Amino acid sequence: MMYDLIIIGAGSAGFSAYKEAIQHTQNILIINAGPWDTTCARVGCMPSKVLISSANQLHDAHHLTQVGILGQGMWDTSKVMQRVRTLRDDFTSGTQKEADSWNNDHKIQGNAQFINANTVQVNGKTYQAKSFILAVGSTPRPNSEWEKELKGKLLTSDTIFELPTLPKSLGVIGSGVIALELAQAMQRLGVKVTVFARSEHLGALTSPKLQKLAQNVIGQELNILFKTIPNKVSLNSNQKVEIQYDLQGQMHSTTVDYLLNATGRVSNLTSLNLEKIDSQFEDIKNLPIHSQTKQLGDYPIFVVGDAFTSTPVQHEASNEGKLAVHNCLNPNHLISLKPLIPFSITFCSPEMAMVGKSYKSLKNTADAFEVGFVSYEKQGRARVLGKNVGGIEIYADRTTHKVLGAELFCEDAEHLAHLLAWSMQESKTVEQLLQQPFYHPTLEEGLRTALRDLNKKLI
Amino acid sequence: MMYDLIIIGAGSAGFSAYKEAIQHTQNILIINAGPWDTTCARVGCMPSKVLISSANQLHDAHHLTQVGILGQGMWDTSKVMQRVRTLRDDFTSGTQKEADSWNNDHKIQGNAQFINANTVQVNGKTYQAKSFILAVGSTPRPNSEWEKELKGKLLTSDTIFELPTLPKSLGVIGSGVIALELAQAMQRLGVKVTVFARSEHLGALTSPKLQKLAQNVIGQELNILFKTIPNKVSLNSNQKVEIQYDLQGQMHSTTVDYLLNATGRVSNLTSLNLEKIDSQFEDIKNLPIHSQTKQLGDYPIFVVGDAFTSTPVQHEASNEGKLAVHNCLNPNHLISLKPLIPFSITFCSPEMAMVGKSYKSLKNTADAFEVGFVSYEKQGRARVLGKNVGGIEIYADRTTHKVLGAELFCEDAEHLAHLLAWSMQESKTVEQLLQQPFYHPTLEEGLRTALRDLNKKLI
Repeated sequence: MMYDLIIIGAGSAGFSAYKEAIQHTQNILIINAGPWDTTCARVGCMPSKVLISSANQLHDAHHLTQVGILGQGMWDTSKVMQRVRTLRDDFTSGTQKEADSWNNDHKIQGNAQFINANTVQVNGKTYQAKSFILAVGSTPRPNSEWEKELKGKLLTSDTIFELPTLPKSLGVIGSGVIALELAQAMQRLGVKVTVFARSEHLGALTSPKLQKLAQNVIGQELNILFKTIPNKVSLNSNQKVEIQYDLQGQMHSTTVDYLLNATGRVSNLTSLNLEKIDSQFEDIKNLPIHSQTKQLGDYPIFVVGDAFTSTPVQHEASNEGKLAVHNCLNPNHLISLKPLIPFSITFCSPEMAMVGKSYKSLKNTADAFEVGFVSYEKQGRARVLGKNVGGIEIYADRTTHKVLGAELFCEDAEHLAHLLAWSMQESKTVEQLLQQPFYHPTLEEGLRTALRDLNKKLI
Repeated sequence: MMYDLIIIGAGSAGFSAYKEAIQHTQNILIINAGPWDTTCARVGCMPSKVLISSANQLHDAHHLTQVGILGQGMWDTSKVMQRVRTLRDDFTSGTQKEADSWNNDHKIQGNAQFINANTVQVNGKTYQAKSFILAVGSTPRPNSEWEKELKGKLLTSDTIFELPTLPKSLGVIGSGVIALELAQAMQRLGVKVTVFARSEHLGALTSPKLQKLAQNVIGQELNILFKTIPNKVSLNSNQKVEIQYDLQGQMHSTTVDYLLNATGRVSNLTSLNLEKIDSQFEDIKNLPIHSQTKQLGDYPIFVVGDAFTSTPVQHEASNEGKLAVHNCLNPNHLISLKPLIPFSITFCSPEMAMVGKSYKSLKNTADAFEVGFVSYEKQGRARVLGKNVGGIEIYADRTTHKVLGAELFCEDAEHLAHLLAWSMQESKTVEQLLQQPFYHPTLEEGLRTALRDLNKKLI
């Protein structure tokens, strides 16, 4: 039996691929190794946002002086982790219910491994298909040495949401998006957090100006040790994690309840035995995957979602999963699975967002561009809210005046970034955006300030 | 001496007109009766948003259980009104400084009155101009009978921000935008508020479904007496305001510290003696002002901003002021001063917003349209935030599928409304908006749900 299409992985990308595929053919299979929910709902976007929401509202309650209200509260955060799981379970049960409703003949539970370009083996049986969508996702980068040393005290983003209650103290390794979101949320919830960062870099921002702003603002509430990585971690006799690290030539040590390893994620493609398709596919990092069609070499195989991407975000995974079905069923008319403007948000506080081309990527090309900047320190509405920190940079092409990209670090950046992403999706110029309505008094007016600054430089 | 242009009024519209005009001619005057700041900064958008910001953050602190945090706070709100004025003074001093920098020969302080179509009189002197921009704004509707009765205990939005501290109790007359914003903010700051509303209508929403949602949600925290207006108000011996009203046939009475009259605003055009230009201009409400060019009759006189509008919002006033200069200087090539999609926000909580055509205006025309709806009660991110109430309706043309309008009542509606306004400004269709990126997990995803609902009905 030859299936039209086999989807491997039932996360955000695989789900979306399956829902699209059944509209075209019933001759399909979806093979999944883990639970029938998504990284996003189980251990990603959703539980982290629940934690962050509690953290930020508690933080605001502790800082009501910023809006002229004195006093203080006595708070009990012992139910916070429980709320995370209650909501999380509700979100995952939604996806599980949806998967339950699918035709049982389409679903296989188990680990798929390729035997050749048309054949995979699952639970000892083989299945053949004309095309494949690989949507196996990614997993937190492991550290086997530390795991052996710290056992259950070493956490990843897969396990942190299972903590019964908030710990008293937490070490965090990494200063990327996931590390920053979780570290700041925990700190705001009263956990004593120490962040160890190999680089001198916080979150996703590539603009030196915004990066410096972010380090200043977030550094005021979060203890971040840049260019500092533990030399040794161990469990002491009280079952606490002891961390030894070198700071400016001096050896220091600190003790925490748990250590969160958030140094990035690795692709699950390694589990698929891709080298059985083609021996050159053994090197997972250098797979010949087309940046637009997401085709693997010349095979009718398409890799979507977090399994192979520089932008592991849910809306792109979903979109790629859906569009990949077209490429599977129309191998002679491949389309780009990347029609959307790059767009990512870091839900720290204030938020970071990246839209279109980053400052760094523009600097690395020969494109002539200008930078418009607005500080949110004196922005009207931000002052009214008591959230007047950060800033925004917007980048435009010097010749066409088209907006090329933006980096944001300010209150409610998620919303401002949508406006910019939708406008860039339509290739708008700076002048065109300045013709749009900016309601008063809103944070959006800050965008206008940045656009006016940009406009002056373009004339 | 014949000026090219005389601007009467130095509010948002007049400011913007002056700044535009001096780029074309120095032969201008700006005449202003009150302080050289704006309604917006002094008694409008800004102080109300400062009050609301304190109110909402205090409300959230009292409702941390919505994000899994138990406990309570002891808060002192005695500095809230002071913060309102400190920030307000900072905003008005910004506009005053700007006006100070203008050429003194351009500025006259005083009340202008027309003598004929080319001549105004101020402080006993006459000034002539080829054209005029009337930007005199509006003022809270007075109630002279109650003023006589209650003296300083009767407040309007012009005087409420001068209260030294928050009152213990407040009666509010009206349930429109200003009444609702101030009543809810005061209630959230611990003031016992009673709202008397002539109609059965809250804020700006015209959709019966959303109006009902709003009444349910806001009615849970705010005591609103619909279809109820005081029969009698008086000061009792303790200098409190006694309000007698008829509720379901029974006479009731309540006592409050102050009574806020927020039953709408009236135009300041009455002060200008427009009847000296043309006797038919005595009837201010029925002035023959062109809806697009804002020209008064056939005279080279243009009325901008709140002085004559159904949409008294700051960004429109500014835009009209600026564009009116073109019409003054190019009387044979008049342009529309209304190029922007109608767009208004009520900063209650959750927020209301109106973009494009309202439900009511669509119902009143013969246009065939469909309605897409999303409830925010189960919207993912809204649940995460503990703010899952309200909903959004989006309206689209049944033939062209273009988005015609939207009414919003949900958390952060101000941001979602910008996205819709910018899209409507570009005449986008429902299908086009569904191609835009919707980041996960955001409140914007709710817009997609409404658009998908709409799309189904259009097919």
